[in-house]
Amino acid sequence: MPEPTVLALDVGGTKLATGVVAADGTVLSFRTVETAVHEGPDAVVGRLLDLAEKTLAEAGHPEVIAVGIGCGGPLNPSTGVILGPPGLPGWDEVPLARMVTERLGLPAYVENDATAAALAEHRWGGWGVNSLVYLTISTGFGGGVVIDGELFRGAAGQGGELGHVVVDWQGRECGCGARGCAEAYVSGTSVARRATEALTARTSSLATIPHVTARDVAEHARAGDALAREVWDETTAMLGRMVAVIINVCEPALVVLGGGVTRAGAFLLDPVREGALRQAMPPAAKACDVVLSHHGDQAGVLGAAAIAFHRIDDNSERPEGDA
Amino acid sequence: MPEPTVLALDVGGTKLATGVVAADGTVLSFRTVETAVHEGPDAVVGRLLDLAEKTLAEAGHPEVIAVGIGCGGPLNPSTGVILGPPGLPGWDEVPLARMVTERLGLPAYVENDATAAALAEHRWGGWGVNSLVYLTISTGFGGGVVIDGELFRGAAGQGGELGHVVVDWQGRECGCGARGCAEAYVSGTSVARRATEALTARTSSLATIPHVTARDVAEHARAGDALAREVWDETTAMLGRMVAVIINVCEPALVVLGGGVTRAGAFLLDPVREGALRQAMPPAAKACDVVLSHHGDQAGVLGAAAIAFHRIDDNSERPEGDA
Repeated sequence: MPEPTVLALDVGGTKLATGVVAADGTVLSFRTVETAVHEGPDAVVGRLLDLAEKTLAEAGHPEVIAVGIGCGGPLNPSTGVILGPPGLPGWDEVPLARMVTERLGLPAYVENDATAAALAEHRWGGWGVNSLVYLTISTGFGGGVVIDGELFRGAAGQGGELGHVVVDWQGRECGCGARGCAEAYVSGTSVARRATEALTARTSSLATIPHVTARDVAEHARAGDALAREVWDETTAMLGRMVAVIINVCEPALVVLGGGVTRAGAFLLDPVREGALRQAMPPAAKACDVVLSHHGDQAGVLGAAAIAFHRIDDNSERPEGDA
Repeated sequence: MPEPTVLALDVGGTKLATGVVAADGTVLSFRTVETAVHEGPDAVVGRLLDLAEKTLAEAGHPEVIAVGIGCGGPLNPSTGVILGPPGLPGWDEVPLARMVTERLGLPAYVENDATAAALAEHRWGGWGVNSLVYLTISTGFGGGVVIDGELFRGAAGQGGELGHVVVDWQGRECGCGARGCAEAYVSGTSVARRATEALTARTSSLATIPHVTARDVAEHARAGDALAREVWDETTAMLGRMVAVIINVCEPALVVLGGGVTRAGAFLLDPVREGALRQAMPPAAKACDVVLSHHGDQAGVLGAAAIAFHRIDDNSERPEGDA
């Protein structure tokens, strides 16, 4: 009898990813495609499910017991409805879980993508800790919290919006409508934007690039460009300060950094780790470390898969009256 | 047989308070005295316990089953040791629970004062909600979180340091050693300091006051002084932004504001509430309201009492294996 697997769908503002994942976290097949968010939710979900069917074929049509879906918040994990995330313009009240179930005939579970990735780090990250915060630095900036092996999602179940803690309360406008959120500074999009703005007044090796990305900023900073280095150093300093805030509030044993911008490796991690552990309250800082995820580009799919396995466990194994 | 009560001790940077509290939240006796923090932990704890004995006598020497102690964090609620709170200089590794037990011969439980007050709001506030955040705006600025009727204290049990979220990451120095924490702006001490600094360059009705307090700032702002009004408006705007962050991260059904600075009433609440609900993510904001505590000066003692009753329940009634 084949091992049961789940289908994992990762809906990002830039990329869609699908995969088939076994209960031990093995990714049996994996595909990505551009989101093309301007096409609107119906078209994007259609392409997502086309991609999913290819992934299922590539995994040899295994027994799939459920679908896990990671998506930018806000969303309602109980109903599977997407509630207008800043990174997915036009996705207001999109019943994503129902759309997926109608097409695939499988139970589908939706979760904030960063929350989902946090659960995957706890389940399959190999860290050996029971409480961690996962921060994703990619198109957006967000986070998920696992405390005592359980997801922390706020009272209404859609919280943990760690990307919307404040860097500077009167600072840059954020996609959420407020000012000065971390996401408006340290997401990949915001790092690129801050560098591009600085270019109007300064010379830099970045000036030759048509559309600067966060990866360009990291590479040119490493190569010695002064402007890129300033933007990068400010980014890691802000990240260090934000991680200190998150350590103060959540007191995790571990902060795991993932998402595309963390491809910069130690060039990102070292200053962020130093700044975070120096600025957090000493008792919480002493009990915590800051590391990079090993999940790479598959972090989103592993997160979605972890959610599917977690919800199945919750539905079938949780004894009545358990907290 | 008399109803069992608890002795409640509230250790603040400015004031000590003691009380005897019944299981329904009735305060049977209540006393306060200046902390005189410069005298050091041994002398302060001595005077705290002298005061406690007076409070016990005034309550008619009731049956006291435990002692609850609220104190500024960081501290370890499991061991009852105080770990150098910014508001209590010199209180490094003070075994407060043990000191109290040795003198009174009763089990003693220590908790972060704002965490404790959050539990009292849940237990006795009359709000009818199961998840709330309590923020105290007094000498310091801090908060406590109750989710599904349980305290949220972070993985290591001393978290929830909501006073150390960031207003401006490169801003004012905070007592915790980092820059730009909320506590460095909106605590009573910081409001007074910001007003005093502004006085050096401006005329104001506050200039006649030898030592400006946050209460003076509120009163002079209400009376029309331009400088006081600017400082007050900036304070309520920052508080609104911080409450929005806390709503984003914790998604409570209610944010309860308490502490001495909230004596300003609607002059504080109205702008903070408006700013918070406007700037929080809409799904979380819709499910939340912002209100003032009714516990007044007794918030600290009620918090300490709530902790004592909670820990007794935890120790005696929690069935084995319950989460």
